[in-house]
Amino acid sequence: MYLHWLLLVLASVGWVSNAENCSFADYSSAYKNIFEHLGLDKNNILMPDIRPLYWSHTTDVYVDLYVTSIIDVNEKDQSITTQVKMITFQLNGLFWWFEDFCGIQTIAVKKDMLWTPDILIKESIKTEFGTKQSPYVQLNFWGMSVSVDILALTTACKMDLYRFPFDTQICNITLHSAVYTKEELTINPFSNNKSLSQESKELFQAQGEWELLSIDISDYTSNFLWNSQDLLIYQITIKRRPLLYVMNIILPVFVFLVLDVMSFFIDASGTEKLSFKVTLLLSVSVLLLILNDTLPSTSDKLPLIGIYCSAIFSLIGISILETILVNLLKAKGAEKRSVETTAAITGQDNVEDLQSPPDSVRDQDGMQRSLCWTRVARIIDVTFLVLYIITVIVFLSVLKRTWFP
Amino acid sequence: MYLHWLLLVLASVGWVSNAENCSFADYSSAYKNIFEHLGLDKNNILMPDIRPLYWSHTTDVYVDLYVTSIIDVNEKDQSITTQVKMITFQLNGLFWWFEDFCGIQTIAVKKDMLWTPDILIKESIKTEFGTKQSPYVQLNFWGMSVSVDILALTTACKMDLYRFPFDTQICNITLHSAVYTKEELTINPFSNNKSLSQESKELFQAQGEWELLSIDISDYTSNFLWNSQDLLIYQITIKRRPLLYVMNIILPVFVFLVLDVMSFFIDASGTEKLSFKVTLLLSVSVLLLILNDTLPSTSDKLPLIGIYCSAIFSLIGISILETILVNLLKAKGAEKRSVETTAAITGQDNVEDLQSPPDSVRDQDGMQRSLCWTRVARIIDVTFLVLYIITVIVFLSVLKRTWFP
Amino acid sequence: MYLHWLLLVLASVGWVSNAENCSFADYSSAYKNIFEHLGLDKNNILMPDIRPLYWSHTTDVYVDLYVTSIIDVNEKDQSITTQVKMITFQLNGLFWWFEDFCGIQTIAVKKDMLWTPDILIKESIKTEFGTKQSPYVQLNFWGMSVSVDILALTTACKMDLYRFPFDTQICNITLHSAVYTKEELTINPFSNNKSLSQESKELFQAQGEWELLSIDISDYTSNFLWNSQDLLIYQITIKRRPLLYVMNIILPVFVFLVLDVMSFFIDASGTEKLSFKVTLLLSVSVLLLILNDTLPSTSDKLPLIGIYCSAIFSLIGISILETILVNLLKAKGAEKRSVETTAAITGQDNVEDLQSPPDSVRDQDGMQRSLCWTRVARIIDVTFLVLYIITVIVFLSVLKRTWFP
Amino acid sequence: MYLHWLLLVLASVGWVSNAENCSFADYSSAYKNIFEHLGLDKNNILMPDIRPLYWSHTTDVYVDLYVTSIIDVNEKDQSITTQVKMITFQLNGLFWWFEDFCGIQTIAVKKDMLWTPDILIKESIKTEFGTKQSPYVQLNFWGMSVSVDILALTTACKMDLYRFPFDTQICNITLHSAVYTKEELTINPFSNNKSLSQESKELFQAQGEWELLSIDISDYTSNFLWNSQDLLIYQITIKRRPLLYVMNIILPVFVFLVLDVMSFFIDASGTEKLSFKVTLLLSVSVLLLILNDTLPSTSDKLPLIGIYCSAIFSLIGISILETILVNLLKAKGAEKRSVETTAAITGQDNVEDLQSPPDSVRDQDGMQRSLCWTRVARIIDVTFLVLYIITVIVFLSVLKRTWFP
Amino acid sequence: MYLHWLLLVLASVGWVSNAENCSFADYSSAYKNIFEHLGLDKNNILMPDIRPLYWSHTTDVYVDLYVTSIIDVNEKDQSITTQVKMITFQLNGLFWWFEDFCGIQTIAVKKDMLWTPDILIKESIKTEFGTKQSPYVQLNFWGMSVSVDILALTTACKMDLYRFPFDTQICNITLHSAVYTKEELTINPFSNNKSLSQESKELFQAQGEWELLSIDISDYTSNFLWNSQDLLIYQITIKRRPLLYVMNIILPVFVFLVLDVMSFFIDASGTEKLSFKVTLLLSVSVLLLILNDTLPSTSDKLPLIGIYCSAIFSLIGISILETILVNLLKAKGAEKRSVETTAAITGQDNVEDLQSPPDSVRDQDGMQRSLCWTRVARIIDVTFLVLYIITVIVFLSVLKRTWFP
Repeated sequence: MYLHWLLLVLASVGWVSNAENCSFADYSSAYKNIFEHLGLDKNNILMPDIRPLYWSHTTDVYVDLYVTSIIDVNEKDQSITTQVKMITFQLNGLFWWFEDFCGIQTIAVKKDMLWTPDILIKESIKTEFGTKQSPYVQLNFWGMSVSVDILALTTACKMDLYRFPFDTQICNITLHSAVYTKEELTINPFSNNKSLSQESKELFQAQGEWELLSIDISDYTSNFLWNSQDLLIYQITIKRRPLLYVMNIILPVFVFLVLDVMSFFIDASGTEKLSFKVTLLLSVSVLLLILNDTLPSTSDKLPLIGIYCSAIFSLIGISILETILVNLLKAKGAEKRSVETTAAITGQDNVEDLQSPPDSVRDQDGMQRSLCWTRVARIIDVTFLVLYIITVIVFLSVLKRTWFP
Repeated sequence: MYLHWLLLVLASVGWVSNAENCSFADYSSAYKNIFEHLGLDKNNILMPDIRPLYWSHTTDVYVDLYVTSIIDVNEKDQSITTQVKMITFQLNGLFWWFEDFCGIQTIAVKKDMLWTPDILIKESIKTEFGTKQSPYVQLNFWGMSVSVDILALTTACKMDLYRFPFDTQICNITLHSAVYTKEELTINPFSNNKSLSQESKELFQAQGEWELLSIDISDYTSNFLWNSQDLLIYQITIKRRPLLYVMNIILPVFVFLVLDVMSFFIDASGTEKLSFKVTLLLSVSVLLLILNDTLPSTSDKLPLIGIYCSAIFSLIGISILETILVNLLKAKGAEKRSVETTAAITGQDNVEDLQSPPDSVRDQDGMQRSLCWTRVARIIDVTFLVLYIITVIVFLSVLKRTWFP
Repeated sequence: MYLHWLLLVLASVGWVSNAENCSFADYSSAYKNIFEHLGLDKNNILMPDIRPLYWSHTTDVYVDLYVTSIIDVNEKDQSITTQVKMITFQLNGLFWWFEDFCGIQTIAVKKDMLWTPDILIKESIKTEFGTKQSPYVQLNFWGMSVSVDILALTTACKMDLYRFPFDTQICNITLHSAVYTKEELTINPFSNNKSLSQESKELFQAQGEWELLSIDISDYTSNFLWNSQDLLIYQITIKRRPLLYVMNIILPVFVFLVLDVMSFFIDASGTEKLSFKVTLLLSVSVLLLILNDTLPSTSDKLPLIGIYCSAIFSLIGISILETILVNLLKAKGAEKRSVETTAAITGQDNVEDLQSPPDSVRDQDGMQRSLCWTRVARIIDVTFLVLYIITVIVFLSVLKRTWFP
Repeated sequence: MYLHWLLLVLASVGWVSNAENCSFADYSSAYKNIFEHLGLDKNNILMPDIRPLYWSHTTDVYVDLYVTSIIDVNEKDQSITTQVKMITFQLNGLFWWFEDFCGIQTIAVKKDMLWTPDILIKESIKTEFGTKQSPYVQLNFWGMSVSVDILALTTACKMDLYRFPFDTQICNITLHSAVYTKEELTINPFSNNKSLSQESKELFQAQGEWELLSIDISDYTSNFLWNSQDLLIYQITIKRRPLLYVMNIILPVFVFLVLDVMSFFIDASGTEKLSFKVTLLLSVSVLLLILNDTLPSTSDKLPLIGIYCSAIFSLIGISILETILVNLLKAKGAEKRSVETTAAITGQDNVEDLQSPPDSVRDQDGMQRSLCWTRVARIIDVTFLVLYIITVIVFLSVLKRTWFP
Repeated sequence: MYLHWLLLVLASVGWVSNAENCSFADYSSAYKNIFEHLGLDKNNILMPDIRPLYWSHTTDVYVDLYVTSIIDVNEKDQSITTQVKMITFQLNGLFWWFEDFCGIQTIAVKKDMLWTPDILIKESIKTEFGTKQSPYVQLNFWGMSVSVDILALTTACKMDLYRFPFDTQICNITLHSAVYTKEELTINPFSNNKSLSQESKELFQAQGEWELLSIDISDYTSNFLWNSQDLLIYQITIKRRPLLYVMNIILPVFVFLVLDVMSFFIDASGTEKLSFKVTLLLSVSVLLLILNDTLPSTSDKLPLIGIYCSAIFSLIGISILETILVNLLKAKGAEKRSVETTAAITGQDNVEDLQSPPDSVRDQDGMQRSLCWTRVARIIDVTFLVLYIITVIVFLSVLKRTWFP
């Protein structure tokens, strides 16, 4: 960790560069001389091969990883694609005293001439250079090399869609060496948690579906075969912006639910009510199309939004069944009544038959039975409505509590 | 197979590393000396070319393959994309005695300086490095080299969607050499079945549509031209999480079926019933859109979910036909009756014609015929309903038994 | 072609390998000696450059191409993506007598040390290695080199969707050299037609939308500028599995057609019938969405399934027009009748006016005219129904004959 | 341009190859001798670097580009993906007299041993080798090198979708050197316009949405900084096959329009008519889904098909408004009448009140006013219908003339 | 910045090239001599490594970046894909006097033989060569090298969809060196703002969804660790062409709104009105499908088009509720009336009961109450209509002002 402090000290010192006193020709040859001084003018087969060892048996690598853009979050594949800027620092043991070389403090060297750490990303499914890979590494006179990479990174990420679209996801980017053990190579954060989070947010270029909440760094040691390895974990916390889903799914489905509840008050010649309700059901089916496009089949627990849609779909289905039942009862009542009535009418108007002497009696009897059916229907209707509304309220409030705990 | 045991022995031995007694300068030069000792400082043209032969005519390669993520399962292309971590072990015949080299037990060497086995994946459609390929191989002092690769692997996989979405798929990843025969190269599993399965599950990063059930390893020998080759087969068993499909397809279609059955009890002025039923049919069509998005045209046997949807679609269609028929009969009855009635009314009220003397007789006769039609309609209706419900129950129970055997 | 026979002879001979009599050290050095014997230990700049010439002016290359998976058939792009295994044999003129080298009959050599034929695939849009490309070539002691490639191949293929989804497609994979003429290089099949087809089917890993019917090989010579070139054509015949399309498009549309035909028997208060029919039309529109997703705009001839859907769509449209017409006529009749009737009723019941003395006469006259309209409507209805059913039957039977000739 | 003629002359001459008189060993060594003769056996660092200069200061490159397949036309991205076969000819100044070398007239040389022109494609977004890139170039004894590339080319193309789906697009493929000026390098067509077009059509492998009409070649000089550069432009004219779009969008929308016009004749109890019409509107909305999938938002001018759909959508909307208005008027009339009638009925039947003595007078007055409303409604209805039909006819004929000028 | 002027001077000078006086053989050897003169015939390991230093300590790189095509704008990923042509100029310090070399002023040199600046694009997610990368760099006799790259560039871009589809987006392309500090390397624009914008528009090949408004260049210095770096920012302003979205979403939704407002005038037997309105709601749901396909969930502020659709959806929902309420009231009124009426009728016609003596009194009382309900319903209806229309107008005008400020 001393490198960190060393850098701060070095950076803060105002080096009196004597580059100004240097003629142009001197500067040019000084530039070349540094390469010769460092032995970079010869094809040294071992130089990029051997891990640089200075001051310690362990090579310390310092990393800064900024998430500059969240390009894609794929819930179906459980992967997240980010654009990250990764700056790697390490001591390479190639020194020069800048005052001897016309004040030149930094040079750029081809990457393949130096040893570079083989840092892998454990969760990575695809690592691509976002831009052309720079062939150069910056080399400072106190022996530190700095390389900058802009990567487009697709990493696996365990996502829990239970609270979709009000969910917050935590994705890890774990850096580790492919083959070096903890004794050979350590990976350390260069900046601290707080400044990293802040700088990432400042660099953050996109304003898409996801909001970057924070980036946390933690160090970890894992077993690698019979050795142990040093891991550096960046934990990225992101939050979905739910408005569009609210607008496209939750609101319409809710409107349909309200309409279904209110449809109890449609004076029912009955059949029109049914047609109204089945159209609501059809509309919810259309919205299921949107849900199907949006939500992947992921977890063992159904996402709450799925429960929300399915439950409302089923509720509307049940209320249609109830309407059919009530209509059936009403129809039975009405049928009886109308049979009587027509019988009465026809009985009185055309055929003066005497088979049915206590006409008014039978009439009243039928009337009562028919009214009985109608009353039963009305009671069922009202009871169901009350139960229905209670169910809806309970369901929605339970759902709300689960959704926003 | 002795390598396996050797490793365990070596790993368990607590090597008394004398690295601590070693000054920094010594350590640094010892590090370099290992390279020289192994002849890695010179460009040996044959070293990466010639298969290492030590202790046996056959080169034994040990492999550990962990499935760390299921990225995508494409039923249409019959392919599966996984992220796998593959660790390859083999003896390279490059030894050093670590006590002579400051206690250094492992070094990292560039991959292209050593021979590496050419292990192919038979089913692979696309093999990509998930992360930057590590240029290094770990080399142990007892001559073993270890390399770690994180791969994004798209492999062909014969999938049977018959039981979709309650299906379990088995996909193979077959490792074999491109050109080496069984006599030259063998590929062996390093970990055993059980520990591999368990470790894969622990490493498993995603929580998507598929659940990893198990990974089985089996060894196999196949003919390759006039030689035979050693194959190592990883059999990955995965199980789909069906909830979303249940919610989006199976449940709604079932609701529509129930509604269709219940629609028999809609007192039919008749036409409203039709409108109700045809809207159900339209809703099922909308759900067919979801099914079409979800299910590819794959096998000779229709997937059960397809049979389920089609059968219910057809059932609703048939029940509409029946409704039309019954309505036709009822209408005929009603028409007759109404003709009579209006005739009766008009006959009595406006035109006192005498062409129809036994008025009440004709009336009753017509009444009976009309009632006859109505009765036939009612009988057909009830019979159909009974048959329909029986059909639905039998169909659903047979389907259930086929689906969950 | 003699290579072919030579191979069979060589393969059938049971070589008495004396590898067993060979000590381990001997074996190891023998292995190295082969490389030296063949001159592969030196960087021979011309070796991979110059076409090997032995026994003939022409270099004969033998190829075996197995289609191991059909990954994707893209009707829109008119391309097919297959996974193929391609084995290439050729004589390289590098011999050794295995008895002199400890019985070693085969070695593996880096590809870039030998000449390899530049075989292109004429139709290829994209050629990717399915798995990591093997860096090795197998070299046999009688001078033959064998290389194995697993390729993911996207090739252009002229597809005719006329009979979709009951179509069979024929796709070519044409191998030819980029620059070598027929006099310099010939490409020959190694296995014969029959065994190739059978082996491909055995290796076939996927069970997707397409069934592999057969693979045929044919040899062909084409002109290349002022020379001629040798072509080897693999003709792959595949057959679509149509069940899902039948279930998702053909069956529902047929159900809608049947419902439309049957809707003639809906006793028409008229307007309900219209609502029923227009909902059918809407449902067919929804199915057009599926068709649109499935079928690309390809040929000059409309695919039969398009004709099927469009024709049924139009038929339903026409039958709606007819219903409107019939209803109009009926309404005219009914209107007249009702005017008369109400006139009659009102005339008799409320206003005892005398302006219309021959009341019953006018009544009967109106009645007849109204009945006339109604009769015309009924005749049109019945005639249309008969014509409609005939049209449907003729259309479907012609379609069937064209579809399954 | 003399190369062109030279080639024809050389090609037409029947070279008396004395290869037959050559023993096999001679042939083999002659083959090697050519390489040595041409100096290709040594690593000449400048050979692939320096532009070959023979007979002129300018290097003439001859190109033949065949469009063998149109893989994808992406209207949204305004890009076209084609498979092209590109043959490049140029004089390399490497001669041998074939009679001195056993009659060998052509050899194949690795591409990186010779200078190759750096021909770029100006419009290219993505250039990929369709098949494995051939490492060889054919070299003729008179010093010409020929190389063949099969490319999958994605090029930007300005597309005008105004007449979609009856549109014809013109896409350019412009070849030019990256850095060579007109004085250094010229790019010329090898075949002429006519033969190229014809050969492309013969080679054309796909039968997709697009028909290849013609390929035209034109030469052009553009300014490149302070120099000028030689450009070769291939102009590819393609024509869309419109049938599927006609079937899926234009026909259904037209059917809906016809149904809407005809719906005027629905005897309107009024409300059913509305339900019919609004279902038509819903159906057109469903078709808008297809249109939205098909058509990208591109130009300043709306594509005609968009105008077609929108106009018909609006027309149906307007006709619904009109229906509502007419129904309102009718209802007003009917309401009045029914009030009177019921008043009349009730007046006579139950309550013998005397407040309204001139009953029949008021009746007739009301009747007239009600009839007035009804008449106004009928007039509006008929007038609108006439205007509507005229509008539709004018719109469709104007559209047709714009579409097929 | 002097390079810029130097170039203009050099370009404007009419060099008297003496190439004409040069024999062909001279020309050819002069060409080779330049390479030797510049030392390009030897493998100079440091040449491509060391930043060229002439006349100054800083290396000035001049860049021209033309946006030649906008291939894709992905609102969901917040990325834009463009095809750009990038010309890089820099002084390499390799001079020759063209008169000494047969008047040759420019040569082409392999890129890897010279130092090239490592210019990265900060926002880049993916940088691909649009066409084959040219291996050459143009070298002028006054020491300047020019290289041309055609790139397909996917860059992150903060997009604000608030005003979609009438939005204008500003995307940056920021060029900077990977490791060189401001003291070592500066990146400067070659052309000025105005000419760049104009030339880009001229080169602009596509006519897709986006219109290129302007390209602005600005120079910027940012901190890079303890140094500062020179940045060159290209600011690309693009404007969406909104017509298709207007046609596909805004217009249809507006039509549905108008229809909903007008549906108040549907004489309501009531139930038909409901069916009409719920079909409107269903149609808007279908259009939500299109909106869902088009609009990603992005910002904290809902895009106006989302508010537009949701608000209208909700308005229609509310108006349905109101219709249900009004119908309920009307039904209550009508029910009362009809009960009375039927009571009256039945009372008079069949049962001459005396329980209800003041028949007409009760009747009138009931009539009044029923009329009261009906009147309330009518008042609510009219009030709501007025409020509804006001709400719609206010909403639309506020929306319009926000949309087109």
